[in-house]
Amino acid sequence: MALKLYGSSNSGNCLKPRWVAERLGVPFEWIETDSFTGATRTPAFLALNPAGQVPVAQFEDGRVLAQSNAIMAYLAEGSSLIPDDAFARAKMFEWLFWEQYSHEPYIAVRIARLFYLKHRPEDLDPALETRGHAALARMEQQLTQSPYLVGEALTLADIALAAYTRNAPRGGFGLESYPGVRAWLYRVESDLGLENGAHAGNG
Amino acid sequence: MALKLYGSSNSGNCLKPRWVAERLGVPFEWIETDSFTGATRTPAFLALNPAGQVPVAQFEDGRVLAQSNAIMAYLAEGSSLIPDDAFARAKMFEWLFWEQYSHEPYIAVRIARLFYLKHRPEDLDPALETRGHAALARMEQQLTQSPYLVGEALTLADIALAAYTRNAPRGGFGLESYPGVRAWLYRVESDLGLENGAHAGNG
Repeated sequence: MALKLYGSSNSGNCLKPRWVAERLGVPFEWIETDSFTGATRTPAFLALNPAGQVPVAQFEDGRVLAQSNAIMAYLAEGSSLIPDDAFARAKMFEWLFWEQYSHEPYIAVRIARLFYLKHRPEDLDPALETRGHAALARMEQQLTQSPYLVGEALTLADIALAAYTRNAPRGGFGLESYPGVRAWLYRVESDLGLENGAHAGNG
Repeated sequence: MALKLYGSSNSGNCLKPRWVAERLGVPFEWIETDSFTGATRTPAFLALNPAGQVPVAQFEDGRVLAQSNAIMAYLAEGSSLIPDDAFARAKMFEWLFWEQYSHEPYIAVRIARLFYLKHRPEDLDPALETRGHAALARMEQQLTQSPYLVGEALTLADIALAAYTRNAPRGGFGLESYPGVRAWLYRVESDLGLENGAHAGNG
């Protein structure tokens, strides 16, 4: 087996490189590694990734790559998931960096706190909710202009943003006011062969 | 003038694409835009970047690109600042994504609160300090193995990480325990033609 992917099946960040590998037909072994149970803090794991984060990709020659969006970009090099045009590629990377800075820290974190850690909504920082909705509004604005985040076709930007957006309702983010986001999620889930509908609010 | 860069001279994120443009000899016009004074929240600015963030690059044809690391990558395409080798390039992107997720939100934020907004240390979230030091320790570990973050030569990873690390003492992060980071900062500042020594603690 050439490629090992260490990650948690409950983590959008971890699913990103898995979806890319599946779509591109890259064979991989999935090694379930759950950060909630301390599996990313063991000496063996920290030797693999000193940052103590999943996902991690380990290649046949032993080399290791971390950061979900960097792993995706490496696996997808030369594929249609990365635009050939330099400016379109730059816009894809704009979305990928924006995702990690302005979307994941609010939407993914609120999903983790409410759905997995069972915190009460009233105990959460209210900024998680307002900034999460600001992120969804930013996506909605783009998705009323183009079917995918970067133009007419699926790119890594869509895969990265779908990872947590499709479970946003688990974080208390209803998607009723974001029809563009909902239609886009349906497209991206269909492209990736994922079940549709978590974003309908039943997730 | 082909390229307009909107940014604040006090922001490490904004200085990143400016340093790259200067190093590569790309002519640009700098448009001072300070997020602390609301300049990134005006209707005119939001029409440019709906995310309301600097830096923003606007090209001669009117096209707009946001996210410091995405702008750097676009400007530097084909230059020595991006490794030719695909895996080294992937490691560079790993550091760029890590910077925005695990370094900037602690070190840059603590610099902003203490140095610019004059908050008192005892009023800050203690996680800013512990996670900032964890980020510096992660860098130190790499920089005892290689002179630059990705091997033997300056890449965008070094430029991105130097932007706030050189002002870390302003955020209360002494660099005394990080000799590898200090030696690396000296190298990167020399490469970029920046003044050395802010990281000695007098910044």
